[in-house]
Amino acid sequence: MAALVTFGEALIRLSPPGFQRLEQASSLDLHVGGAELNAAVTAHRLGLSARYITRLPRNPLGHLIAHRVQGQGVDTAHIVWTDTGRVGLYFVEFGASPRASSVVYDRRGSAMAEIRPGEVDWESAMRGARAFHTTGITPALSPSAASATAEAVQTAKALGLVVSIDLNYRARLWSPEEARRVMAPLVAQADLLLTTEEDAERVFGIRDPDLGRVAERLAKEFGSKVVAVTIRETPSVWRNTWSALAYTQGEVVRGPVFDLEIVDRVGAGDAFAGGFLYGFLQGTVGDGLRYGLAASALKHTIPGDLLWATKDEVEQVLRGGGLRIVR
Amino acid sequence: MAALVTFGEALIRLSPPGFQRLEQASSLDLHVGGAELNAAVTAHRLGLSARYITRLPRNPLGHLIAHRVQGQGVDTAHIVWTDTGRVGLYFVEFGASPRASSVVYDRRGSAMAEIRPGEVDWESAMRGARAFHTTGITPALSPSAASATAEAVQTAKALGLVVSIDLNYRARLWSPEEARRVMAPLVAQADLLLTTEEDAERVFGIRDPDLGRVAERLAKEFGSKVVAVTIRETPSVWRNTWSALAYTQGEVVRGPVFDLEIVDRVGAGDAFAGGFLYGFLQGTVGDGLRYGLAASALKHTIPGDLLWATKDEVEQVLRGGGLRIVR
Amino acid sequence: MAALVTFGEALIRLSPPGFQRLEQASSLDLHVGGAELNAAVTAHRLGLSARYITRLPRNPLGHLIAHRVQGQGVDTAHIVWTDTGRVGLYFVEFGASPRASSVVYDRRGSAMAEIRPGEVDWESAMRGARAFHTTGITPALSPSAASATAEAVQTAKALGLVVSIDLNYRARLWSPEEARRVMAPLVAQADLLLTTEEDAERVFGIRDPDLGRVAERLAKEFGSKVVAVTIRETPSVWRNTWSALAYTQGEVVRGPVFDLEIVDRVGAGDAFAGGFLYGFLQGTVGDGLRYGLAASALKHTIPGDLLWATKDEVEQVLRGGGLRIVR
Amino acid sequence: MAALVTFGEALIRLSPPGFQRLEQASSLDLHVGGAELNAAVTAHRLGLSARYITRLPRNPLGHLIAHRVQGQGVDTAHIVWTDTGRVGLYFVEFGASPRASSVVYDRRGSAMAEIRPGEVDWESAMRGARAFHTTGITPALSPSAASATAEAVQTAKALGLVVSIDLNYRARLWSPEEARRVMAPLVAQADLLLTTEEDAERVFGIRDPDLGRVAERLAKEFGSKVVAVTIRETPSVWRNTWSALAYTQGEVVRGPVFDLEIVDRVGAGDAFAGGFLYGFLQGTVGDGLRYGLAASALKHTIPGDLLWATKDEVEQVLRGGGLRIVR
Amino acid sequence: MAALVTFGEALIRLSPPGFQRLEQASSLDLHVGGAELNAAVTAHRLGLSARYITRLPRNPLGHLIAHRVQGQGVDTAHIVWTDTGRVGLYFVEFGASPRASSVVYDRRGSAMAEIRPGEVDWESAMRGARAFHTTGITPALSPSAASATAEAVQTAKALGLVVSIDLNYRARLWSPEEARRVMAPLVAQADLLLTTEEDAERVFGIRDPDLGRVAERLAKEFGSKVVAVTIRETPSVWRNTWSALAYTQGEVVRGPVFDLEIVDRVGAGDAFAGGFLYGFLQGTVGDGLRYGLAASALKHTIPGDLLWATKDEVEQVLRGGGLRIVR
Amino acid sequence: MAALVTFGEALIRLSPPGFQRLEQASSLDLHVGGAELNAAVTAHRLGLSARYITRLPRNPLGHLIAHRVQGQGVDTAHIVWTDTGRVGLYFVEFGASPRASSVVYDRRGSAMAEIRPGEVDWESAMRGARAFHTTGITPALSPSAASATAEAVQTAKALGLVVSIDLNYRARLWSPEEARRVMAPLVAQADLLLTTEEDAERVFGIRDPDLGRVAERLAKEFGSKVVAVTIRETPSVWRNTWSALAYTQGEVVRGPVFDLEIVDRVGAGDAFAGGFLYGFLQGTVGDGLRYGLAASALKHTIPGDLLWATKDEVEQVLRGGGLRIVR
Repeated sequence: MAALVTFGEALIRLSPPGFQRLEQASSLDLHVGGAELNAAVTAHRLGLSARYITRLPRNPLGHLIAHRVQGQGVDTAHIVWTDTGRVGLYFVEFGASPRASSVVYDRRGSAMAEIRPGEVDWESAMRGARAFHTTGITPALSPSAASATAEAVQTAKALGLVVSIDLNYRARLWSPEEARRVMAPLVAQADLLLTTEEDAERVFGIRDPDLGRVAERLAKEFGSKVVAVTIRETPSVWRNTWSALAYTQGEVVRGPVFDLEIVDRVGAGDAFAGGFLYGFLQGTVGDGLRYGLAASALKHTIPGDLLWATKDEVEQVLRGGGLRIVR
Repeated sequence: MAALVTFGEALIRLSPPGFQRLEQASSLDLHVGGAELNAAVTAHRLGLSARYITRLPRNPLGHLIAHRVQGQGVDTAHIVWTDTGRVGLYFVEFGASPRASSVVYDRRGSAMAEIRPGEVDWESAMRGARAFHTTGITPALSPSAASATAEAVQTAKALGLVVSIDLNYRARLWSPEEARRVMAPLVAQADLLLTTEEDAERVFGIRDPDLGRVAERLAKEFGSKVVAVTIRETPSVWRNTWSALAYTQGEVVRGPVFDLEIVDRVGAGDAFAGGFLYGFLQGTVGDGLRYGLAASALKHTIPGDLLWATKDEVEQVLRGGGLRIVR
Repeated sequence: MAALVTFGEALIRLSPPGFQRLEQASSLDLHVGGAELNAAVTAHRLGLSARYITRLPRNPLGHLIAHRVQGQGVDTAHIVWTDTGRVGLYFVEFGASPRASSVVYDRRGSAMAEIRPGEVDWESAMRGARAFHTTGITPALSPSAASATAEAVQTAKALGLVVSIDLNYRARLWSPEEARRVMAPLVAQADLLLTTEEDAERVFGIRDPDLGRVAERLAKEFGSKVVAVTIRETPSVWRNTWSALAYTQGEVVRGPVFDLEIVDRVGAGDAFAGGFLYGFLQGTVGDGLRYGLAASALKHTIPGDLLWATKDEVEQVLRGGGLRIVR
Repeated sequence: MAALVTFGEALIRLSPPGFQRLEQASSLDLHVGGAELNAAVTAHRLGLSARYITRLPRNPLGHLIAHRVQGQGVDTAHIVWTDTGRVGLYFVEFGASPRASSVVYDRRGSAMAEIRPGEVDWESAMRGARAFHTTGITPALSPSAASATAEAVQTAKALGLVVSIDLNYRARLWSPEEARRVMAPLVAQADLLLTTEEDAERVFGIRDPDLGRVAERLAKEFGSKVVAVTIRETPSVWRNTWSALAYTQGEVVRGPVFDLEIVDRVGAGDAFAGGFLYGFLQGTVGDGLRYGLAASALKHTIPGDLLWATKDEVEQVLRGGGLRIVR
Repeated sequence: MAALVTFGEALIRLSPPGFQRLEQASSLDLHVGGAELNAAVTAHRLGLSARYITRLPRNPLGHLIAHRVQGQGVDTAHIVWTDTGRVGLYFVEFGASPRASSVVYDRRGSAMAEIRPGEVDWESAMRGARAFHTTGITPALSPSAASATAEAVQTAKALGLVVSIDLNYRARLWSPEEARRVMAPLVAQADLLLTTEEDAERVFGIRDPDLGRVAERLAKEFGSKVVAVTIRETPSVWRNTWSALAYTQGEVVRGPVFDLEIVDRVGAGDAFAGGFLYGFLQGTVGDGLRYGLAASALKHTIPGDLLWATKDEVEQVLRGGGLRIVR
Repeated sequence: MAALVTFGEALIRLSPPGFQRLEQASSLDLHVGGAELNAAVTAHRLGLSARYITRLPRNPLGHLIAHRVQGQGVDTAHIVWTDTGRVGLYFVEFGASPRASSVVYDRRGSAMAEIRPGEVDWESAMRGARAFHTTGITPALSPSAASATAEAVQTAKALGLVVSIDLNYRARLWSPEEARRVMAPLVAQADLLLTTEEDAERVFGIRDPDLGRVAERLAKEFGSKVVAVTIRETPSVWRNTWSALAYTQGEVVRGPVFDLEIVDRVGAGDAFAGGFLYGFLQGTVGDGLRYGLAASALKHTIPGDLLWATKDEVEQVLRGGGLRIVR
């Protein structure tokens, strides 16, 4: 039994070390990640026990992924295993100003993209849980994955779980129009909607210099209980500032602002989602923003997609623990 | 212009260092290989200028492959570039007795598998060449790749090139029956057929404890000028013996036997093919066996799929250069 | 709930890469291991669900160990967490003839050595299990660890579990006399006793050129249902042969003999224990020897203390899967 | 045939990883570079096909260099191979404020330093080319290398190529007086002169707080069509700003300014030269500055001496592509 | 014979590469350090020949430490070797804002902590020396280590050496009260006291926004000839500013301020101590501050605890050598 | 003061990891070695305090070498430092049958090759020593190095030291005729001559299937007290057998035979020399053979040129310590 259930694709990530370009690499660092897995790991580390659902092939790469999920303590009992399909991959190149970091996806034909409704026993998987979380990536994988996502959201709704969706638009997977068509009915069932300024505009055409208004308009359009928007300033590739706000019940709540030195920003939005879910479910929307931002700020400093940090460390960041060496 | 043209798929190979299993890896070594590329590199290094034809996507991984082919001096002018498809990958785990080394392929949907007849200007690509070489892997990739292979073989034949085919049966790509159906007409057009005891039996059902007889039966069935069969003894994973024989014009010619300490045996059969082509085209079938075996013996001692060695080094091995340190 | 419960100390292992001596190292490879953990992992991978019990400090090194145990799927719910004590370490240097591999332990003052009776709720931890396994290392850690071990064995016995003990004498932890005094009453309660020719002699003074007689004498002295003895021949550091026999109910059963190329032999005896437990509990003493030896043979080929292999792979070794590359 | 021909020394570069000092290194990263090679690679990647001429010994290190040049697609047909001489080396230590990065050269006695006039068939090598590029390093290698450079410049001039010279003063190779004496007649034949504020002063004694005036004075003194001066501000070792201006036909043209996060600044000036040549030959002096600066800005973010980037990526930087992750 | 004698514990330091957390590490970088060793190395490199005294076990880890000390040229003749005890370890995680770097110590039970008075022949060890240096860490290791430290200080005093103490309070080793009780009599015998704003307050309760006043109050309380206080500003984890001041004979002397890009700040305070000792003994308090700060500024840019730099390099930093590449 | 003084060139050795060829390397492992340094290190570790004399440039590479020599405890006080010349380098490729390991030297123009008589104060350097050791490499570096070697040998002789010469013929440095002409007078002054079957024939034309006769003929020709000949059998690159014999005073003494698994055989002959000197000076010619062979056997199992082992470990090998893991 887990308090949080998340659903999506886990990929193997390969990245050349030391700011190399892929073309010059002679070895690649290997990590495992995926938006919904990353969120589950963050929530679990903060204390919200998590279960992760995906679909994996029975081969060494599928086992590798399950191994890494288990290592985080996240429950894998409802992962769907299959003899066909592949593990999705993605390649990251880390940049420096003026070269942005970049990602090449190689996820077509993955076992997860071929998931079909009915393959997961959602009732059993969600029994006793408090929340369900997925992102706009999962339905974008394929029409059958979109159907499975819809099935999950409906079951969660029916079982009374808090439904959380991170919009997470991926231009390489679908067009804004497709995204809008598929995501709108899902978002309409969600209690929490997480997104960015850019995605709100690209998918739903909502643009406003006042981000609080963006959140408000999204909340009103979809009847969401909470809409949270993360805010990133990028003066350089290695230094960003990072914050978020949320609209809830007529009010705009603002989170703290963090100055970041960036080791690896992949997965930071997902760490925000996981932290937000923890804070919100244990406390208030403000707690959601605080835990989401602190977890996510830490994530920027850690290699790989996952938040290798403890709840204590997240709370130290919230308290402003200082930047001197700790000994 | 190149003396040898080869055609096939190039893959990125990823392998965990230090005999690790994939499941435990935190980084992967990256190499580039492919049966026909490997053969082209060996032939080119021995002095038979080579051109390699494949199909690659315009992305960092496609560029990476072209970069590594060019680095070897092999001509890339006729590579077909595309905006769709992916780069095929494969994963190698290096073993130790009693654990054999093993390979996981992830090549479905590659740009090369989607090649169609008409995409390569074969006449231009083969103008002035002396030989064309491909393997049973290329037609196994997809029906359209099989058609493109047939097109290549016909053009080579028409232009008077020596046609060389390495049977190279891959059980994960097709069944023996499919292989036989597609390969038989191709082999029937080949001047040289290269294979192993196992593949001769699996694909063509030819089995004989006397391997000379196997070669002879293949030669007679397909009207080949030369049929060469490589012979591997595997007392352990790290120590093998390696030899070959050939049947040509009523005669069985035997090559030298090499005792091998194995660093990386992937690509060794292809190095034999490349060395055989060089020796055969410059001299006799016996020269083909000698250069093929020496090149291939060296390949076993070098990481990666390619023969990073000079003609001098191959000839030193043929002369029995000794196993003491050279300084 | 788990079918197998094991109890002991997990250590962080640090080893210089590439056959370096510690004195010349500039980096160390990190693995996690411990005799009873290693056995649990093997059994779990073969299908005997396992729980591992140890005592760990709440610091990054303690978390690291728990993370690695979880990654293997082994249950960690009964690990005892503490604010004091350290994580035990050990350092391995890999050798080549005539330099044997060697180990430097640095485990004094570990959290596990300070475990006291009453800290583990054995009844709850063993509920529903079929077997309990520990080794002679655990009681050697400290008198209080010996008491905790006795407590565990008594509870297991009382609950009707099969009790398995691997004698595993460690000369750096105690003298043969101390070992005999503490181990004799524990072994007397065990159903299965696993050991080596050397340890049988060093701890219990039993020596016989006929190893079947050694097993028989141990079985008779301690009333064990089964006594298994592993047999290693070491013609060189990199090549060993490996086998085992067992005495049970008046009969000596012999396992197959494996020729090994050795990547990392640490943990091989523990893989034997885990495999033996699986085979024996699912079948016969002969199955125990076969699964134990095959799992252990594979372990020799894998870096680290743990068996990163699947049940399929173990069974392929039992079937004599061949030493050629698998693709 | 190539549009651009460059001439100079290629060296193997060795650098300790992770900001280590050489004295503490246990391994060194290996790259290949050289001012004129670096410029050729940049121009070639932007679309100006390039040929590189140097002199290399027939040994593994010479082959290594040729291999890396070929990998970039740059033509190596006119490289002079020799049985004597060595490959020049240089060692880089990467710094952090207040420790500047530093270079130790070990290039004395290199095969290239021993080149003599008449060894390169310049007419054949330059046939059909549009431009010839070299730097002040090549004539500094030795008197015979200076003669060979003069021979190259004269042939280029005679064949109507655009002649480009990067002043590139190296204090460890010669004195300012020697440099002035040898470079002045070469620069007098050049259409393009590339330099820095520092070198203009050190070699030609031209100093002016207005860098446009420096360029103008150089242009007038040597009758150059274009004189470009790069401008670096170094507030810290890891953060620089980077720009350039050019004087041409009575006018000072200024390029854009880039804020840089520096991974590896070696080769950045050469990337400017290669980019400038491309932009200038395809368009205007302004295009030269823009492509030169964008290519060079990217080079600062990439390990090694070479610009591992595509024309698209350079143009994205010119368009201000943004510093967020690209996916 | 050595001009400077230092006394303390040397530890092996293990740190995961690339900003990894310990929990995710698969290898650890190994360095050797210790406050008094680090100071000795800096002083020795500047020209003040140094001897280092510690206590080490006769095992590969003890030999490793002695090897690294010797490599620096520091005299090891008075190291006490023992058959018991372990080598202390510490683990470092490198951070990025807002995650501070952190250290986990594992030094309990070290051979050095078990040192007892009488084990070192202080008179022989100090014969001919000009100064003795230790820190507040050494007496904090254990009561017997505190007694040995007192013995050393008394001997130094008696022999007329300059006695230097770096307060270096370690909260994980003892409480402020214990530190005050043990340190006060030692500090009262010291000619030089080195400390930070934080430690002055934590151990001696001296707080003043004017750091010159802090130094003055310490000097007056303990009768020190010189009290130096280092001053660190930490706007981010990767960028600090660094300076120091000293009170001596009624006067406050201020050192230069350095802007730092931080590769590894562990050992920087000790490099200050070593540089201060050199500068002070060769010149004035101002020289002490200058050499101390420049050495320490360099140390921040070098991996490991030790100052791998030459006197020339330190003096270049003092002269403001510039941040451009040196070639 | 040191018991043994050795004289020769120390080089930086660079080798690609994992059996790579140089041409494919992206990083190189760095070690320091040199025949006479290696011998000094072995002797010093066995207990014969050693001083090493060479000539080094004052640059980071020269400092690197001195640092590594000091780290071994070998005295560096008489190293000659210079502002000119370079550090010699060599590159090693590790092989596997049938590819022998090979070495590329790049030592021309080294600071040591430019040493001249009079630069070393031999009397001071040798005061109190028992033996002086050099090899045939040192005089081969240059005529002035040969003169300096002659000067050293004469001084050693005059001071009554045992003079030891390892013939060590290097075909890339001089011809057999040159070697004979220069070495004969040096060898004639030597008490000990160490060599191999091959070198005895190549340099002095002495060939005999009975190696005892070879040693005897050498002893008689040059009036040597002892002539030792090492004997290597190379059934494969990774497995050798290794032994030696010596002729002394009318008698042939034979050493034990070792079966070796080879990690790195560079420096093994030098370890024999160092071990022989220790054994011979402390005991008998038989002790020399035993310590020389055991030290050398260990050296084959250790990466780098130096013997990172203790006297205990060498003596364990002599006692036949067994090939099982030591714990």
